[in-house]
Amino acid sequence: MNTHFHAIIPAGGSGTRLWPLSRRATPKFLHDVLGLGRSLIQATWDRVAPIVGEDRVWVVTGENHFDQVAEQLPHIARGQIIAEPSPKDSAAAIGLAAMLIAREDPDAIVGSFSADHSITNVDEFRLVIDQAVAAAETGDIVTIGIMPRNPATAYGYIETGDLLGLDGAPTARRALAFAEKPEASTARQYVNSGRYRWNAGMFIAKASSLLDILAEEDPALYSGLARIAEAWDTPDHDEVLSAVWPGLEKRAIDYVVAEPAAAAGRVIVIPGDFGWDDVGDFDSVARLRQPVPGEPRGVISIGGNTDLLEVDASGVVFSEGPRTVAIVGLEDLVVVDTDDVLLITSRSHAQDVKKAVSVAGERGLDELL
Amino acid sequence: MNTHFHAIIPAGGSGTRLWPLSRRATPKFLHDVLGLGRSLIQATWDRVAPIVGEDRVWVVTGENHFDQVAEQLPHIARGQIIAEPSPKDSAAAIGLAAMLIAREDPDAIVGSFSADHSITNVDEFRLVIDQAVAAAETGDIVTIGIMPRNPATAYGYIETGDLLGLDGAPTARRALAFAEKPEASTARQYVNSGRYRWNAGMFIAKASSLLDILAEEDPALYSGLARIAEAWDTPDHDEVLSAVWPGLEKRAIDYVVAEPAAAAGRVIVIPGDFGWDDVGDFDSVARLRQPVPGEPRGVISIGGNTDLLEVDASGVVFSEGPRTVAIVGLEDLVVVDTDDVLLITSRSHAQDVKKAVSVAGERGLDELL
Repeated sequence: MNTHFHAIIPAGGSGTRLWPLSRRATPKFLHDVLGLGRSLIQATWDRVAPIVGEDRVWVVTGENHFDQVAEQLPHIARGQIIAEPSPKDSAAAIGLAAMLIAREDPDAIVGSFSADHSITNVDEFRLVIDQAVAAAETGDIVTIGIMPRNPATAYGYIETGDLLGLDGAPTARRALAFAEKPEASTARQYVNSGRYRWNAGMFIAKASSLLDILAEEDPALYSGLARIAEAWDTPDHDEVLSAVWPGLEKRAIDYVVAEPAAAAGRVIVIPGDFGWDDVGDFDSVARLRQPVPGEPRGVISIGGNTDLLEVDASGVVFSEGPRTVAIVGLEDLVVVDTDDVLLITSRSHAQDVKKAVSVAGERGLDELL
Repeated sequence: MNTHFHAIIPAGGSGTRLWPLSRRATPKFLHDVLGLGRSLIQATWDRVAPIVGEDRVWVVTGENHFDQVAEQLPHIARGQIIAEPSPKDSAAAIGLAAMLIAREDPDAIVGSFSADHSITNVDEFRLVIDQAVAAAETGDIVTIGIMPRNPATAYGYIETGDLLGLDGAPTARRALAFAEKPEASTARQYVNSGRYRWNAGMFIAKASSLLDILAEEDPALYSGLARIAEAWDTPDHDEVLSAVWPGLEKRAIDYVVAEPAAAAGRVIVIPGDFGWDDVGDFDSVARLRQPVPGEPRGVISIGGNTDLLEVDASGVVFSEGPRTVAIVGLEDLVVVDTDDVLLITSRSHAQDVKKAVSVAGERGLDELL
């Protein structure tokens, strides 16, 4: 265990494509979306804490979710749950966490791991992260590139270059560029080329390297975060936070750090194939929970004590109650049965669930959001 | 108003294709399936009572439904609700009612009208029934033939012959034969020939004619019913009923009366096109409630105070509660949201709902049936 390696878990985002399971008050990462007995943030903790050590895990989340995070993660020090007064995207969240960590450990290496992703092969994940930490010793920014399962248009891509032959990171390559979510035809070219990998949004770097780039690329954001970090453990904490935070720019860490670093030839990519999924919508959930190909597909129940009656049907049912759910003649259905909302859609329309949330918002049904 | 014309409303059948709305304890005819403010049996009363007069309407139903029928039809004399100890199909039900009516009115003409059908053009229905009553004066059995909307395989057909030129029944024709529910190819031939009409299961006849045929075709059933009718208003009622009823044969009136009469050239058919539907499944319900062709189709809510959020969706939602129902990217969906069962199917699979009921039965989930 590298005692300078710290994990940052950004726990934000509303997860509207997983509505009405995921709500403003209880977003996706707080739910056991996959029905495996642990919420997504708990599963993230379970993966990451054994790698970095429990006392080197940090969570950045909205202040309205602080108590729920603390309750779900009983072994985290409350001082390592960083509460944001409002969402300011990942550059502010990760930047602030990196500063607070670097204050305590100037030689820190930080790794950022989303609170709401799924990884099925944790042993392989660990081996990949070990390589990433070794590669981060170079001072470069290290990211993980996932082998594309299909020409997805929902993910950004990383163009990979030559093997670097680094000690402790034998599969590390130079990252030539980050590409934003592509059109379908471009995505096919990427996948066919064999040179592109999905950007899973994981970054591993020396805190000092990351903060140097942040200072250079966005001095205003950097200095704002520095003021907050300086006052963090002082009586001025609340005053400085409420004075500075609202004025911070909302920017993604990808734009502020990763892309400039790639352009300067300072990003390394470690190929990682460990069953990563961003659990972005109910189609992801169904894919992660359906039986393996070749086995009969049916209806899978997640949560609750739901009895299922299925006739020529397949899909997933999320239910909080003990009602019987009967599905007749529908394939790849998605049903979410909560106390106040019943959602019915199909796996192929899982992306459109956010439209229903928009409609609910337009109608002023705020209690459902 | 013909003061010898009496209506019999057989109110039986479990309506499993409308489960979980329709249950053993509260079958289809007791529900406002179409969301029009009246249950199907109430709507039948509303159609029929003005034609025959309120004091000449009789209902035959299971004894476990007696109280609910009496409550839903406050203007019917309780003595004209005939309670069956167990289901014995339509020959016993209509035969017994005809006997009880004939005892009071030997010149009675009886008309049998199912408790769970829908008719949209009641004025036209009344004109057709007026013709049927006139035609029944001949002593023949009169039935109503519905113009087929499509080559349905779910209905029996009536083969029609020549116009008869009867007084008061100008469109009456000879019925050549009854045809059972056909195969699809046969149904297409029927419809293309122009000579076949749907058998809507309505019969109008002199009670004496109907009972004569019953006596001839099924003497055992006739004599059983006669013993029960004789004891009906006596202290022996319960004893005779419980001794005789269980032994009665289960037979449909079509086989015992209509088909033999047709073979003997004694059935008349009145063509009737008044928006008849047997409300057999949720596809029927959706067709009866969807907007007219050309108008935008959406999701229709029946019952409850359900809010709907629809995105690229159409279909019907039955809901008992005030939950919001969101449907995303599914066409012709059927959702039935009851306290203990949630059913989801499509209009095209509406016939298969009975399979889910079978599965529930096989699993011993009797409380859901």
